[in-house]
Amino acid sequence: MNILDEKINHINILLASKSPRRQELLKNIFSNFKIEVREIDETFPNSLKGGNIAQYISEQKAKAFILDKRDDLIITADTIVCLGDIVLGKPKSHQEAYDMLRSLSGKTHVVYTGVSLLFKGRITSFYDATHVSFYDLSDEEINYYINKHQPFDKAGSYGIQEWMGYVGIQKMEGDFFNVMGLPLHKLYREVNKLID
Amino acid sequence: MNILDEKINHINILLASKSPRRQELLKNIFSNFKIEVREIDETFPNSLKGGNIAQYISEQKAKAFILDKRDDLIITADTIVCLGDIVLGKPKSHQEAYDMLRSLSGKTHVVYTGVSLLFKGRITSFYDATHVSFYDLSDEEINYYINKHQPFDKAGSYGIQEWMGYVGIQKMEGDFFNVMGLPLHKLYREVNKLID
Repeated sequence: MNILDEKINHINILLASKSPRRQELLKNIFSNFKIEVREIDETFPNSLKGGNIAQYISEQKAKAFILDKRDDLIITADTIVCLGDIVLGKPKSHQEAYDMLRSLSGKTHVVYTGVSLLFKGRITSFYDATHVSFYDLSDEEINYYINKHQPFDKAGSYGIQEWMGYVGIQKMEGDFFNVMGLPLHKLYREVNKLID
Repeated sequence: MNILDEKINHINILLASKSPRRQELLKNIFSNFKIEVREIDETFPNSLKGGNIAQYISEQKAKAFILDKRDDLIITADTIVCLGDIVLGKPKSHQEAYDMLRSLSGKTHVVYTGVSLLFKGRITSFYDATHVSFYDLSDEEINYYINKHQPFDKAGSYGIQEWMGYVGIQKMEGDFFNVMGLPLHKLYREVNKLID
């Protein structure tokens, strides 16, 4: 029994994400939740930058449930990787993954996860930012990682909880779990506020 | 097959640590290693501070193998938690764990892991530091965590990969895995240098 479970045992929780990493992470603060995913258009206004992009897309994901008028607490999230003003998405090929990792090598990028909570017809949203600094990566390391871990489902072409995260990252600043796809600390606190 | 495995497949690796977390972490950069632990006196000179304490203790652990004159690469490590000049060890009781977590609440502390590599009769050692900032923790949260996770084997009374790490930590700066007990990024690089 989790400390938040007792407070919210009258509320059904729905995680609207197909990411297995988010599902694993959420289990650490809620024992029970369902998963239901609705596809949305993930384009965003050009005027948005960084964390506001991730927050905007998470809001769109939550809005896909708003007409349901159900009693559940619905959690949506979106994670993006930004190198300066460039937003790195999921790579479509080995070459794209190589190019992304080559561009991240030796530099600091920012990972933003936006989260929206739809509860009682209202959406509360926020984002968290984590700065991640890569070592200089060799071609051998980049190609080894892509071949072994096939990071084609990951924005920015790497998972921090995989080999590249273990050996390629010099330092990070912020929430580790935010990089994995869900800022658990903030989420825990926002849910606490919402149900208080 | 791991990228380092190919380079060192002629070398046997020995991890001299009984920590299951270190064993799990090391698996991410080496596929094969043995475990053998020797108990040592973990006291240290009063003149040492912070990371030098962890590095010193890891060296003592490595020295316990130096007379063996074996060909293995022997890896030892020690992790300490420092709040200002106070070194927090493993708590011996619920009350001690409570007192440690209460003292960490709302503050930033530093986790140091010292690592020593004994190879061909020589010891190479280093340490890594990660700054960890806790939210203000409620008594309910602290007691819930101690009761559920029994952090009596953990310096500082918490595991960053447990519930307290998921919800209690506002931010961190440095290597996440260093807090878990092994600075994998530095270790990977130091081993590469050693065997080059």
